[in-house]
Amino acid sequence: MEIIRTVEEMKARARALRSDGSVVGFVPTMGSLHEGHLSLVRMAGELSDSVVVSIFVNPTQFGPNEDLDRYPHDLERDVALLEDAGAAIVFAPEASDIYPRGYATVVHVQRLGEKLCGAFRPGHFDGVCSVVAKLFEIVRPNLAVFGQKDGQQAAILERMVADLEMDVRIIRGPTVREPDGLALSSRNNYLSDEERAEAPVLYASLEHARSLYDSGETDAAKVLGAVRAMIESKPHARVQYISAVDWKSLDDVTELRAGTMLVLAVFFGKTRLIDNLVLGG
Amino acid sequence: MEIIRTVEEMKARARALRSDGSVVGFVPTMGSLHEGHLSLVRMAGELSDSVVVSIFVNPTQFGPNEDLDRYPHDLERDVALLEDAGAAIVFAPEASDIYPRGYATVVHVQRLGEKLCGAFRPGHFDGVCSVVAKLFEIVRPNLAVFGQKDGQQAAILERMVADLEMDVRIIRGPTVREPDGLALSSRNNYLSDEERAEAPVLYASLEHARSLYDSGETDAAKVLGAVRAMIESKPHARVQYISAVDWKSLDDVTELRAGTMLVLAVFFGKTRLIDNLVLGG
Repeated sequence: MEIIRTVEEMKARARALRSDGSVVGFVPTMGSLHEGHLSLVRMAGELSDSVVVSIFVNPTQFGPNEDLDRYPHDLERDVALLEDAGAAIVFAPEASDIYPRGYATVVHVQRLGEKLCGAFRPGHFDGVCSVVAKLFEIVRPNLAVFGQKDGQQAAILERMVADLEMDVRIIRGPTVREPDGLALSSRNNYLSDEERAEAPVLYASLEHARSLYDSGETDAAKVLGAVRAMIESKPHARVQYISAVDWKSLDDVTELRAGTMLVLAVFFGKTRLIDNLVLGG
Repeated sequence: MEIIRTVEEMKARARALRSDGSVVGFVPTMGSLHEGHLSLVRMAGELSDSVVVSIFVNPTQFGPNEDLDRYPHDLERDVALLEDAGAAIVFAPEASDIYPRGYATVVHVQRLGEKLCGAFRPGHFDGVCSVVAKLFEIVRPNLAVFGQKDGQQAAILERMVADLEMDVRIIRGPTVREPDGLALSSRNNYLSDEERAEAPVLYASLEHARSLYDSGETDAAKVLGAVRAMIESKPHARVQYISAVDWKSLDDVTELRAGTMLVLAVFFGKTRLIDNLVLGG
């Protein structure tokens, strides 16, 4: 496995790969890898000849009061995990290389990027879209895999790629969960024991919503109310939002149907967790 | 010369050209072509194997009170001129193909896109950057030629390309002028005879500024004052802005030097004209 630390070198390497006719798969990450990321790397491996994984804690997608400073870093551990997962190249650039002096360009996805998490984290998705657009130019992948755990992010990036006619296929990898249902996230480590004990209510409430839908209930307001009630029964939980949207357009829905994404953000103490579930046909 | 009317067909054709190893030059236009555009096409021809010219009156770069509706269209005439100028492909898509239902992505260049024309035409450069980013993905050129006449636009696009690591070289073609110095523009046709008679003052005032600089005056405020006085001596002229900026960063300068761009926007009646001049070494 190669480790590449500069934009220049990554561009040269990516172009050499493409001119060989290799199918290049790409998994952008912020490091601090867990089984969720590794499942995306393995999925990319199934679909391509060479998998590039970027590790870059992107400062522009953190708000001023968010956890950029305490975001965990352990490149050596991440590299070992990626080697096992079959990555061909790890691209771990410095922030000064991605954002040199004078950097000024922002990619914004209207509507989809302004609601749900976007309403509470202004600029977050601009940071995500801009860095992903740039990473796509550097790495020139045929396909890129993102986790359904960040369902809004995936929908926004699919929109960006379609809108700008970028030559990359976006693939969503399924959410990986702990045995008790909690979606894997680097931020789970911030939870106290008490908060950690309560956090599985997020997926449990989404599963409850699915069972209501499966038994014929399609009134979004009713189902979302049931989700909220379950979550609010936990003393450390504070709901930021719970919504029902189309999983691709992110338009709000009032009647649940196949392709509806139930999506939520909930604080446990100071730690903000997100999760979602897409209803089937 | 080929005429291509759909994004899909242009993408396929561009990828075939690139896989042949052809160097592709690109000149994006809004049609209504004049010698200024044609000089860019010929310049692209000198530097590449195949020149693609797009003709697309991009609605998103016009403000609500601007001249989108009266912007001139004559595809047949434009096609004949481009054939003579040596273009290989004319790409003339429909707006509904570039902006399908649900389109949501905007590329914004901070600072450089927010001053000068950007301060008076909110959203204009977002429209330009977004459509150019998309056209670059569709046409995949090795190089693209833009007129120095739109000096701020060229600097913004150079910034965007550098920031996002796009694989295209931006080249600025010199401004083509009428014998009396007026920069060629589709909008010159809107001028009344009286306004047309006064409009050459724009370039005359910029040339006067250059002669002041050449004789040792480097105080930007003084030189800009002299430019303003010359222009305001014309009864139909109304200055929107006159500035001295670095031609690449667009940062304001107080001391003129090589690479300073003197840049202005002036109304004659309802018609807004722009011009600029870059000081030499």
